[in-house]
Amino acid sequence: MRHHDLVVIGAGSGNAVVDDSFADLDVAIVEERWFGGTCLNAGCIPSKMLAYTAQVARTVREAGAYDVDAELRAVRWRQVRDRVFGRLDTERDSGRQGRVQQDSVTVYEGKARFIGPRSLRIEGEHGTVDVSADQIVVAAGSRPSIPGPVAEAGLPYETSDTIMRIDAPPRRLAILGGGYIAAELAEVFGAAGCSVTIVEQEERLLGPQDETVAERFTELVRSRYDLRLGRELTGVGGRPGALRLSLDDGSTVDADMLLVAVGRAPNSDRLNLEAAGIATHDDGRVRVDRHQRTTAEGVFALGDICSPVPLKHVANREAKVVAHNLRHPDDLVAADHDLVPAAVFTNPQIASVGATEQECRDRGLDYVVGLAGYGDVAYGWAMEDTTGFCKVLAEPGSGRLLGAHLMGAEASTLTLAESPYWIHPALTEVVENALLDLGP
Amino acid sequence: MRHHDLVVIGAGSGNAVVDDSFADLDVAIVEERWFGGTCLNAGCIPSKMLAYTAQVARTVREAGAYDVDAELRAVRWRQVRDRVFGRLDTERDSGRQGRVQQDSVTVYEGKARFIGPRSLRIEGEHGTVDVSADQIVVAAGSRPSIPGPVAEAGLPYETSDTIMRIDAPPRRLAILGGGYIAAELAEVFGAAGCSVTIVEQEERLLGPQDETVAERFTELVRSRYDLRLGRELTGVGGRPGALRLSLDDGSTVDADMLLVAVGRAPNSDRLNLEAAGIATHDDGRVRVDRHQRTTAEGVFALGDICSPVPLKHVANREAKVVAHNLRHPDDLVAADHDLVPAAVFTNPQIASVGATEQECRDRGLDYVVGLAGYGDVAYGWAMEDTTGFCKVLAEPGSGRLLGAHLMGAEASTLTLAESPYWIHPALTEVVENALLDLGP
Repeated sequence: MRHHDLVVIGAGSGNAVVDDSFADLDVAIVEERWFGGTCLNAGCIPSKMLAYTAQVARTVREAGAYDVDAELRAVRWRQVRDRVFGRLDTERDSGRQGRVQQDSVTVYEGKARFIGPRSLRIEGEHGTVDVSADQIVVAAGSRPSIPGPVAEAGLPYETSDTIMRIDAPPRRLAILGGGYIAAELAEVFGAAGCSVTIVEQEERLLGPQDETVAERFTELVRSRYDLRLGRELTGVGGRPGALRLSLDDGSTVDADMLLVAVGRAPNSDRLNLEAAGIATHDDGRVRVDRHQRTTAEGVFALGDICSPVPLKHVANREAKVVAHNLRHPDDLVAADHDLVPAAVFTNPQIASVGATEQECRDRGLDYVVGLAGYGDVAYGWAMEDTTGFCKVLAEPGSGRLLGAHLMGAEASTLTLAESPYWIHPALTEVVENALLDLGP
Repeated sequence: MRHHDLVVIGAGSGNAVVDDSFADLDVAIVEERWFGGTCLNAGCIPSKMLAYTAQVARTVREAGAYDVDAELRAVRWRQVRDRVFGRLDTERDSGRQGRVQQDSVTVYEGKARFIGPRSLRIEGEHGTVDVSADQIVVAAGSRPSIPGPVAEAGLPYETSDTIMRIDAPPRRLAILGGGYIAAELAEVFGAAGCSVTIVEQEERLLGPQDETVAERFTELVRSRYDLRLGRELTGVGGRPGALRLSLDDGSTVDADMLLVAVGRAPNSDRLNLEAAGIATHDDGRVRVDRHQRTTAEGVFALGDICSPVPLKHVANREAKVVAHNLRHPDDLVAADHDLVPAAVFTNPQIASVGATEQECRDRGLDYVVGLAGYGDVAYGWAMEDTTGFCKVLAEPGSGRLLGAHLMGAEASTLTLAESPYWIHPALTEVVENALLDLGP
């Protein structure tokens, strides 16, 4: 059995752990699919490249609102896709190549399973190898969840892993799920010319967002998509390229392609964690303490496989914490998940940080609400904006912010600043107004 | 002579001083031109509404970079103008109407001149009236400066006060000046179809910006405009609609219209300030202390007529300070001009706060530079950005920020946040990278 100082399972955010300070160690990185992980290959980055393209298309389509006479002739999907993945696949390959050529790093390409404490079996195309290590980092990520009726139908379906790379957009796209991945991809494929139907169990899209955001976003896109809300999928019939989804009220949805976007599940079930004494939560996430240590001595975890907030910027933060703690067992640092901003790159964008109003209510908190519209600031006038807003929640009296939620252009960059001055007329004024709206 | 508790000269930012807390006083507001001042009528707001329209037009024109096949047929200038000023003129009129109908406020429409300490003569269309007051606020703003050769030629020219309201864009527009007003209006009228020539004394546009911003911006727009840099205007000839500008190197510029945008001068010279004992700086700005008090007892000033930073968000801040100090002579508050962010709404946008590199050098400061490109973060990839960047200047050792400068999309909203998390992949990552680039 080959022994390493450190083995990292997963070359997504896990890859970032191995910085220059590890050059004196014998490090192995195990990756079964793609260097760069979900973010680079099937997540944040391609989806944002596609979302921005969709935004350009929407700007062209809506240019008349600004008295700009423009015609949208086509979104050339195949060229878009090749532009995006031509770039990202090159990044992935050069990331892999850099590790392969690195003297202090061994790259194993295959599936890893624990066979004992700090011991792994890696099965790859070119054979099987067993390795052990002083320290292990579990960063094997997550994957799209597939509900029973889809899995059982035996008919083709796409997920966020595959749909961004298709050759041509379908005429009719059905999306199962109404969360942020569904919403972003609906915008992308809507722009590419698809007729989109969304099937969602809840009565609103983007359910986990603050209720005002979720309500207003749902209303806003009602004219763009065929929304089947409060409906569950009971079966998938038809044939490849001509699917018929059956819903629990007896209604049906005909579609040429089905995108499943109902959530993601951690890949912990594929690692035989029991053999290593690594415990998980009921939802499958690996249990970690605030220092990202699992229940097994010398084994850390980070990213989607363990995090309560499965976002890339959180995984990056955790990777820094793990990198430090691996080298400094007597001076551990902690990851902080208290205030994580997050954005949805739909049109309009959505951004949030802290508690939603429903969370404030559920926790029995006393709170006040500040609300401000984009249309009430000069730059919102410039954008002829009628729907954008910022909502802030604060403790009465102290004014301490509990949460902030934005829907509108540039929402993702409108994070709350401590800056005493707000540029006039920039969209930061919306945030200022929402704070003022809280009252004294 | 009619006596008031308070007279405010200027219904731009001065108008904001008179909030509900003044309802128990006899207040007069004097305005000679337009309620809402420069910002609403000829400054920030219409220019941003036009700049956003220009941005939409540019997005359409450059959509091919995202494989979006689009055609820009026309920017319908007259409709753009009517949309912008139809809205703003209504705002102005309702602002005026609100004051006219307010019991505690008297509106004088005319030109005010001091005739003694806290005494004014107001000459309007309907006659002349003398008034006195316990307290006076001087908020008479600034106006475009007109250089000798333009004034002496006796030929028509436009300024930012007039050009945004013209009936049709000229075929050839010459712009005198290369500061932010010139740069914003060049973009607006370039989008409207004008062929633009810029004549600027300095070798770079946007000279007061950080030198990296000024250099890169100048290079970027060299292909858009005919730039005549390092050149002075010596005369204006030709005839209305067919002007010929003569420059100091003997070259000429033919243009159908001339826009003068060489800077702004405070309106202090029109108020007979000497009669009231109100002193000015050599550059014409009214002298104020940190409480916005002029050298005359009971007379305050705010905004462009006195401010070292003639920006609307600064005037707003000063108006709040004056409103407080008028009512609380024993508990004065101060305006703080140390850290004022500012933005230029060109394409790309520019934003800055704190010291420029040339200021650091001139002040003999020890500093380090952090530089990060939009093209190095995921959202910059999505935008196919090749020119955007963030530059930060900091004290070595402490890392204390001295200045931050951005050129690129959404620059105006990318103000520095204290937030520990940066959304991935949002453009805030450019700012994070620039900070990281400073090193430990």
